[in-house]
Amino acid sequence: MKILSASWIITCNEDSTIIKDGAIVFDEKIIDVGTKEYIENKYTGIEIEFLGENSVLMPGLINSHVHLEFSSNATTLKYGNFMQWLNSVIASREELVEKATSKLISKKLSKMLKSGTTTIGAISSYSLDIEPCVKSPINTVFFTEVIGSKADMIDNLFADFKARLNTAKKNASKSFIPAIAIHSPYSVHPFLIRETLNLARKDKLAVSSHFLESPEEFEWLHRDEGSFLEFFKNFLGQEKSVTKPMEFLNQFKDIDNLSFTHCVEASDNDLKKIKELNAFINHCVTSNRLLNNTKLDIDRLIDLKVPFTIGTDGLSSNNSLSMFDELRNCLMVHVDKNPISFSKNLLEAATKNAAKALSLQKGELEKNKDADIIVITLPDTIKDEEDLCMNVILHTKFVNKVFIGGQNA
Amino acid sequence: MKILSASWIITCNEDSTIIKDGAIVFDEKIIDVGTKEYIENKYTGIEIEFLGENSVLMPGLINSHVHLEFSSNATTLKYGNFMQWLNSVIASREELVEKATSKLISKKLSKMLKSGTTTIGAISSYSLDIEPCVKSPINTVFFTEVIGSKADMIDNLFADFKARLNTAKKNASKSFIPAIAIHSPYSVHPFLIRETLNLARKDKLAVSSHFLESPEEFEWLHRDEGSFLEFFKNFLGQEKSVTKPMEFLNQFKDIDNLSFTHCVEASDNDLKKIKELNAFINHCVTSNRLLNNTKLDIDRLIDLKVPFTIGTDGLSSNNSLSMFDELRNCLMVHVDKNPISFSKNLLEAATKNAAKALSLQKGELEKNKDADIIVITLPDTIKDEEDLCMNVILHTKFVNKVFIGGQNA
Repeated sequence: MKILSASWIITCNEDSTIIKDGAIVFDEKIIDVGTKEYIENKYTGIEIEFLGENSVLMPGLINSHVHLEFSSNATTLKYGNFMQWLNSVIASREELVEKATSKLISKKLSKMLKSGTTTIGAISSYSLDIEPCVKSPINTVFFTEVIGSKADMIDNLFADFKARLNTAKKNASKSFIPAIAIHSPYSVHPFLIRETLNLARKDKLAVSSHFLESPEEFEWLHRDEGSFLEFFKNFLGQEKSVTKPMEFLNQFKDIDNLSFTHCVEASDNDLKKIKELNAFINHCVTSNRLLNNTKLDIDRLIDLKVPFTIGTDGLSSNNSLSMFDELRNCLMVHVDKNPISFSKNLLEAATKNAAKALSLQKGELEKNKDADIIVITLPDTIKDEEDLCMNVILHTKFVNKVFIGGQNA
Repeated sequence: MKILSASWIITCNEDSTIIKDGAIVFDEKIIDVGTKEYIENKYTGIEIEFLGENSVLMPGLINSHVHLEFSSNATTLKYGNFMQWLNSVIASREELVEKATSKLISKKLSKMLKSGTTTIGAISSYSLDIEPCVKSPINTVFFTEVIGSKADMIDNLFADFKARLNTAKKNASKSFIPAIAIHSPYSVHPFLIRETLNLARKDKLAVSSHFLESPEEFEWLHRDEGSFLEFFKNFLGQEKSVTKPMEFLNQFKDIDNLSFTHCVEASDNDLKKIKELNAFINHCVTSNRLLNNTKLDIDRLIDLKVPFTIGTDGLSSNNSLSMFDELRNCLMVHVDKNPISFSKNLLEAATKNAAKALSLQKGELEKNKDADIIVITLPDTIKDEEDLCMNVILHTKFVNKVFIGGQNA
């Protein structure tokens, strides 16, 4: 059992409790959280380690959506337009994936850990990132991804997917949790979706899918038109999209832990359906920005009570896998949100919401949750409690300490 | 004479020339710029230092608007609302300015240099930042600032201002250039403005002023209403603003080098007047964002052909004085601009435009300009020349080398 005390505790719990001069008691799980005074009186005779002036304790950050297999990209892929980006991914995929060795991915994971990330939702297209994820102290929800829209390829693709999913399952542990990703409505045949979702239902696996990321995807899915038409004709001889957005969403009934990534072109009805499915939206603001996609309408999500999480996406469309960089970008892009109150929302999106989306007992400093905790030191004292979350986001590049499952990581 | 060659040269000149495999010849001034082949053939027998794979040469960045005297702020001031921020500045000003010692400011300047800034426009409210600016290798255009809206205080304030301006003039050198700042339309009496601008005209000094930063300022200047009314009543017993925006702008005729900072609430007519005055707008995107002010409408500036520069503002409303951080924030906030083409505009705003605004022979890698040059190494090769500027902005935290006036700085 360990007790830490800090100037501030941001619990990210249901009541958004912030504790001044707080302390936390934990082993593998969190045992107790309260003011330092309360903890001192309750746990007499146990040493309390004070983390120093202007220290902050909060739940480890959860990066809900990242493509580690594209970690070797820095300047190769084309930004500024979704189709150009997609074409550049196809052109450079082999080269990039080959360069994203286990060693490189491990290095990136280690930097993510130092920047306060304790859990990731890793979308794995080729299962080449299993080894570094299994080895890392970071918890991984490992989304084996299925892709393929051509009917005559389905059997082979499904067999390959199942083999990869089984490999993931064989590696399952407390910190490596198999899950399923459907690539997108435009790229996966409804039959493949049905079969993979049945596997998810059977084994209670979390599921995630990209959804309505670009105007091009919207046009193709709704009207079989636009730049996707040319793309599908050229690459796959397809002239019609395999599904409509609502048909696609309707396939996801009875999936317990569900999230959709991007959704920037989703209609109100799509969002209502996402809400009805108890799903979360993984918001990847930097990726959307760099590909010049539409800005997610956060106010609409709030109105419709659709919860969101924060993901960096891959280095295929970001210059950083640091969640604090991503949170700062969220603050910048969503320029219409008050930075003080929005910062609180953002920290909760990056902890509690993501834990729920991924079905994890994490993301809150609350009794019985996993002891995934980060320690931050702010550059100066906080005068007003309401400014705490914003200052944590503005000033944190690397964290001082990380505990995962109560262990120093 | 020194010759450097790099994978890329971003000249930021009038033609926005980018040179692949380029070289630059310079002593204190730039002597020649061209392809490596051209330079090799022209300057035979002189050693060319190759800066390595994926190296980039570009003009040093010019931070057009920074308040160094507030460098001690990190978490003290209140963000999210202009009036709350202003009140917090007044409440904590003394404490913050006292903590912003010469040593602290020198440390910040040194970090700015490492992040590629070779020239600053320093707005000095108290002249407490003279010493570190004079000592720094960074070129400083030192804006001695005048403030005071109460008629009965004007004589004293003007005397104090002149004394401070004279101190700045005594320190004048090639790298320390005295200039004049008018605090704002709401805070400086028209008489004080007239007198200080006459000094500027006489000595051909550059002039800068804050202008229409917040909705509160707009309401006060146009209608003598809003939160400024209460503020001015309480602090100064004033119930009417001392000027209207257009009256204010009209005072600046025949100032050779003129800039207005923020201008986010400026009307089309204000902007046309700014254009007519040959003035520049200093854009401080992070500051505007953190105080929850309006986003500058860049497209309107482009339509009306009003040129803009980039400033970090002070640490009083920013978490960083790095121009690359600021440029990244510009890319994020101006989410409607294509990141590829806008990045090119941004680098030019941060170099060539700022040099013009400050009347400096800098900001372009072009014959006869000052040899203020930064060297960057990108993490990977650039496939498409048009992606160069965006990748420089996305990936540069610190530069490899800095030359100021041809000297390694």
